[in-house]
Amino acid sequence: MNINGQRLLDNLTQLAEIGATADGGVSRPALSEADVAGRAWFKQTVEAAGLLYRDDGAGNQSAVLPASESNAKTLLIGSHLDSVPNGGRYDGALGTLAALEVAQTLKESGQSLPLHLEVISFTDEEGTVMGLFGSQALAGLLTPDAFQNPRGGVERLRDGMARLGLTQAGAIASKRESGSIAAFVELHIEQGTRLEEAKLDIGVVTSIVGIRSFWLTFQGQAAHAGTTPMDKRADAFIGAADFGLRARQLVMADFSPGVVNVGKVELSPGAFNIVPAQATVALEFRHGTEDQLDSMQLALLGLAQEVADSHGLTVDSRAAVHIVAAPMDDRVVDAIGRAADELGLSYRRLMSFAGHDTQAVSRIAPAAMFFVPSVKGISHNPQELTHDSDVINGGNVMLHTVLRLMETFS
Amino acid sequence: MNINGQRLLDNLTQLAEIGATADGGVSRPALSEADVAGRAWFKQTVEAAGLLYRDDGAGNQSAVLPASESNAKTLLIGSHLDSVPNGGRYDGALGTLAALEVAQTLKESGQSLPLHLEVISFTDEEGTVMGLFGSQALAGLLTPDAFQNPRGGVERLRDGMARLGLTQAGAIASKRESGSIAAFVELHIEQGTRLEEAKLDIGVVTSIVGIRSFWLTFQGQAAHAGTTPMDKRADAFIGAADFGLRARQLVMADFSPGVVNVGKVELSPGAFNIVPAQATVALEFRHGTEDQLDSMQLALLGLAQEVADSHGLTVDSRAAVHIVAAPMDDRVVDAIGRAADELGLSYRRLMSFAGHDTQAVSRIAPAAMFFVPSVKGISHNPQELTHDSDVINGGNVMLHTVLRLMETFS
Repeated sequence: MNINGQRLLDNLTQLAEIGATADGGVSRPALSEADVAGRAWFKQTVEAAGLLYRDDGAGNQSAVLPASESNAKTLLIGSHLDSVPNGGRYDGALGTLAALEVAQTLKESGQSLPLHLEVISFTDEEGTVMGLFGSQALAGLLTPDAFQNPRGGVERLRDGMARLGLTQAGAIASKRESGSIAAFVELHIEQGTRLEEAKLDIGVVTSIVGIRSFWLTFQGQAAHAGTTPMDKRADAFIGAADFGLRARQLVMADFSPGVVNVGKVELSPGAFNIVPAQATVALEFRHGTEDQLDSMQLALLGLAQEVADSHGLTVDSRAAVHIVAAPMDDRVVDAIGRAADELGLSYRRLMSFAGHDTQAVSRIAPAAMFFVPSVKGISHNPQELTHDSDVINGGNVMLHTVLRLMETFS
Repeated sequence: MNINGQRLLDNLTQLAEIGATADGGVSRPALSEADVAGRAWFKQTVEAAGLLYRDDGAGNQSAVLPASESNAKTLLIGSHLDSVPNGGRYDGALGTLAALEVAQTLKESGQSLPLHLEVISFTDEEGTVMGLFGSQALAGLLTPDAFQNPRGGVERLRDGMARLGLTQAGAIASKRESGSIAAFVELHIEQGTRLEEAKLDIGVVTSIVGIRSFWLTFQGQAAHAGTTPMDKRADAFIGAADFGLRARQLVMADFSPGVVNVGKVELSPGAFNIVPAQATVALEFRHGTEDQLDSMQLALLGLAQEVADSHGLTVDSRAAVHIVAAPMDDRVVDAIGRAADELGLSYRRLMSFAGHDTQAVSRIAPAAMFFVPSVKGISHNPQELTHDSDVINGGNVMLHTVLRLMETFS
């Protein structure tokens, strides 16, 4: 059995007209007018396909193909339709529309299903108002606290929710019942170059990395940059610089393929003629398991202390973000790999270094995701491109994964 | 012959009451109400000492002890009475009042002088409105351009000048006639620890360092801090960090006692989860001669290019400040050293790594300056302290330097 590849490509093209930008990209941030238009198109497309349309208090939209028995569990597949501002046409959209195509193909096949098949489009994966809004709500991870200080600001969240008629209580109440979801699978573009470079068709994700970030503050002594001899300075920038270089070396040597970034540095007082008293460093690192993240944290914070000591500085660290690593479910990972094999497609296992809705859903159900190649790895950009053949491969791998999981989890 | 040390100490104490702060410091920024009060006190003190009071269109105040012949040249000595906000009681005040004490001592001695002796208090050395305002005016270095974008802002400059009844034209016209100044000497506190550490009484300045500053912009590529493998990044912060560390090593190894500082760094876009595309670095370096500064500039900008190349970045440099190094006049330097010898005081020659009025005056007259120790090097701070014995030593070295220069330059 195969999906209708042309129909999937046509749907992608139609959707890309909603929020289309002059340079061929898409600007459809969550809860924007373009997002509202995209949602209307999705609902209409679901109904035209003869699937049941559903939505919930978090704005998640679903297309349901019911099982033969109404008390069956649900096999959930999908992604998101929102984009970053001035983004591309594949990020999220591919996974959602490929899932829809799989459901439509299965409906047309007329076979009876042991599990409900639910195609889902999650609200605000990209974090316009609050990253992974819909998938967190579904997984019961949204608390009233989350609405106090959302990433996009309280005002944008309030206005956006009002536009869709959503309420905080309704979003929190969208949590799915424990055990109701048999498994979850997401298809997404890679947003990297590992598959393209290795000339592989499919990347099966074994873990979505956890993210930890810290503010490190190196403290020295402000001093006149003329009258203070070089060997008498406690220069906070020298600490930050040495740390930045050595953190990179450390992670490459001992924690590959884990990654580390210093994305922001602020020196204080911050003038040409004053030796910096203080350097505040935004440190972030990612790896596939909490154990690996614990080891990285120990090594990096230890390095910060060692560097501070060696330059006559002190250093303090303050935790910022802590996103738990999400190892994927072995059964779902295996099913994806076997589906690829069955279709004669090459694949490798890899980690996802970016966050996805799957990481939220994996907290309440067996979950995994897989990638198709992105040309040059470009993403969050109008030039984002996945070749048609890879789009169709992705849809077919999803179809055959669904067929396997229907057996595994029924 | 010696100065009246107690009178000098008393004058310092009296002046410190004007703009006194609760913690024993002084807040007397140029052209403030406290500065106006300090100026009134100075005028009154000059007249009480039986010296001729003068001021000019830049607000510079003088006390003149005339030569025996009215067409004699002028030996100029002095410093400034303004302070930084919440500064100390010695910076500038010591040099001005010690010069006044020298003139008063010479007047009382009744000896006839081959040169006019003029004690000067320069306007706004500290840069509240426009650093070295008075000394630059006197040296003919003020142009209409300087009034367009003054350090303290146009409004503060205009209001402050109005408070003293100064005009732009009047300030520019305060330029002294070429050749009218036979020589200039300034006494100042060291604002560093070289003398204290070496247990020396006097530091004879051989050069006031030149200052050059540049904005260096390292340019790489913004990238997702998760999905971009470490070895595929063009991380602008890594360039800035490597440059900062190596610039420090380079200057310490090859340009001592020259100094270098990175006082400010800005990373762009500047987020935890984005590899920095751009790092803008505020680089400043100082050395005693333009030749040395040329060599440092070549080495440091060359290093920036080398570092950029090695990390797959580009780098651009944009000159910011260029303050010309001011080598002191050998004859004046010698006279100060001999005066110290004569008084049995120990001294060394050194560079001044901070700017002073002497650097402006040195453009139009043979000039030099000397330091007395600052306890722990603390300056621009209420805890600024120079011991009474060092205050009196400074006054006596100035007196004997003046006596020597009266012969040298008459």
